[in-house]
Amino acid sequence: MSEKSHLSKNMINRRSLLGSSVAVGSAALAAPAIAEEKATIEWKMVTSWPKNLPGPGVTAQRIVDQVARMSGGRFQIRLYSAGELVPALEVFDTVAAGTAQMAHTASFFWQGKIPASVYFTAIPFGLLPHEHISWIEQGGGQALWDELYAPFGLKPVMAGNTGVQMGGWYKKHINGLDDLKGLKIRMPGLGGEVMRRLGATPVSLPPGELFQALQSGVLDATEFLGPWSDRAMGFQKVAKNYYSPGFHEPNGTGEAIFNQVALDGLPEELRAIVLEACRAENGRALAESDWENAGSLQLLQEEDGVTVKPYPDEVLNALRETTAIVLAETGERDPLSKRIYESHMAARQRLAPWSDVAMRRFMAARDGSS
Amino acid sequence: MSEKSHLSKNMINRRSLLGSSVAVGSAALAAPAIAEEKATIEWKMVTSWPKNLPGPGVTAQRIVDQVARMSGGRFQIRLYSAGELVPALEVFDTVAAGTAQMAHTASFFWQGKIPASVYFTAIPFGLLPHEHISWIEQGGGQALWDELYAPFGLKPVMAGNTGVQMGGWYKKHINGLDDLKGLKIRMPGLGGEVMRRLGATPVSLPPGELFQALQSGVLDATEFLGPWSDRAMGFQKVAKNYYSPGFHEPNGTGEAIFNQVALDGLPEELRAIVLEACRAENGRALAESDWENAGSLQLLQEEDGVTVKPYPDEVLNALRETTAIVLAETGERDPLSKRIYESHMAARQRLAPWSDVAMRRFMAARDGSS
Repeated sequence: MSEKSHLSKNMINRRSLLGSSVAVGSAALAAPAIAEEKATIEWKMVTSWPKNLPGPGVTAQRIVDQVARMSGGRFQIRLYSAGELVPALEVFDTVAAGTAQMAHTASFFWQGKIPASVYFTAIPFGLLPHEHISWIEQGGGQALWDELYAPFGLKPVMAGNTGVQMGGWYKKHINGLDDLKGLKIRMPGLGGEVMRRLGATPVSLPPGELFQALQSGVLDATEFLGPWSDRAMGFQKVAKNYYSPGFHEPNGTGEAIFNQVALDGLPEELRAIVLEACRAENGRALAESDWENAGSLQLLQEEDGVTVKPYPDEVLNALRETTAIVLAETGERDPLSKRIYESHMAARQRLAPWSDVAMRRFMAARDGSS
Repeated sequence: MSEKSHLSKNMINRRSLLGSSVAVGSAALAAPAIAEEKATIEWKMVTSWPKNLPGPGVTAQRIVDQVARMSGGRFQIRLYSAGELVPALEVFDTVAAGTAQMAHTASFFWQGKIPASVYFTAIPFGLLPHEHISWIEQGGGQALWDELYAPFGLKPVMAGNTGVQMGGWYKKHINGLDDLKGLKIRMPGLGGEVMRRLGATPVSLPPGELFQALQSGVLDATEFLGPWSDRAMGFQKVAKNYYSPGFHEPNGTGEAIFNQVALDGLPEELRAIVLEACRAENGRALAESDWENAGSLQLLQEEDGVTVKPYPDEVLNALRETTAIVLAETGERDPLSKRIYESHMAARQRLAPWSDVAMRRFMAARDGSS
């Protein structure tokens, strides 16, 4: 989910629509007594995805559809795919400016301007999807996220989830730390920084160039998402070693961003509707990603000759220790970053032992390897 | 979640309310032109829980509140706690009869009349919460659940989740299969049947009697739910060995049951609202249960002197092998039960390897025990 749009960056339509369009249907004017309210609120949602991109693109469309359905058509949100109104990575500024009332995107795209935003997607060795949702809903995560975006006049919420990532595609085996030295790998964000400190050479490339770069040798390895998206990208044709776990991104929360003034201006029931539609997507999207990732994982192994391998312990231990240093540094930037770092660490300390006792032991017992 | 109400069984109010009450507010009668629709639909929701019981009781209340909020007050659902209108375990029949339009409960309560209903809560060595939601949403589970309840004129959906269960409280250590012989244990349903075949003596007792039974020696062991609910029950005062995993119930889906005629009779937008409110609770309730279970697990170990122990491999292997036999038998009852059994097994076969690669390996790497 680190796509950069290659479409025109000059498509911003600056008509100010912050106040929202309001259309009054003729039925209401004609109807007597118990007239149905036909005033229609029209919003724009800009997204960082191609239209109906499996996973987040489908999620964005479902939110729009559910809002229309629950409001009886009174609340219409027009969805713009990446590049249609603004490029994929300008949606944050577009909603801040009020050119669109909301966006569907992912928080780690904003690391350049708000480094701590990455905590609201995933951090290396951080929280799994169910743990992340628990932190946001119950552990103070939402309030910190709100505080982080408030200076921009924006309100963020979770809206979908693509699940746990895989570790990535490697042309050669990784048998130990020496195999990371000089390794040309595509891994954005904090995971890439951890790899760099262990001697690898992170290469920044957009998704559309990854396949060819891996094929030609510009890259020795690349991560992308999970089996569903990765198989569609075709990586299995040029690399046969698929490593796990995705230590660098154990969660894939989709982000809805609202212009706060626009959100506050909605009638209370429509505000409740759009927020609940986002929340419902957290489970629905994860269910879809898990189902499709599971099916693609089978196909990769049974039909594509891919070997799914665990990183060696030596490598995992070094990745974990280096991650602790990199994360601690993110907490030194400013007081709010420090509070976000500490809150995330506290949530992990609380939730990880429960996941271990409840889920990891169960999974081991289920497959007979306890 | 296997509470039996001890309150009066004679409180059914048989006024037929299937058609729903419709009240027209005076504002609509007075308002001209673009009048807001004030027709109010009033429903009854009967539940199997005490009012605001942590977990499912809170979920039921949130669904009611969210429906009122999203409908702008036009759709009012009155919540009846267990025993208030009908006893906890009569809610299925009450909604089938149309005395209430919906219920909030759990599907495994209906094992007596519909044995396969247990598959829609949890089965031993079955699906974890995220896997269960994936099966229902993506793997054909919802259609089978619908088919199972259709003869009763009912439509079921997921509405909340209490998460993975713990294995239970044991007064003595379980070192091997011999320690199960003659063990007086409270474990309802299929898990209890598996225990019985391994020589234990399942004892059927309602939740309110468990603490005293464990204290007095009527029980040697008991399961209940997870650390949050279990600690509130006080089991840690009379047993110090808390076993995991909860092999018998790896998921805790709450069930909303609708009277199909009532649901079909709703305006489309209100039908969408109540269904989306139920769906949003799947993630919200699980987030709360995970957060509270994690906190209570810490307190049990740090303040209450409880030891959290894994079942020995010998015991887990026997439990798993016996479970396979018991589950296969449930598929032999009738063609629909067979299809449900086979669909659940296929979902497990597809999803478990992905959970293992993505989550189990990640959890091991995170705590350094890969």
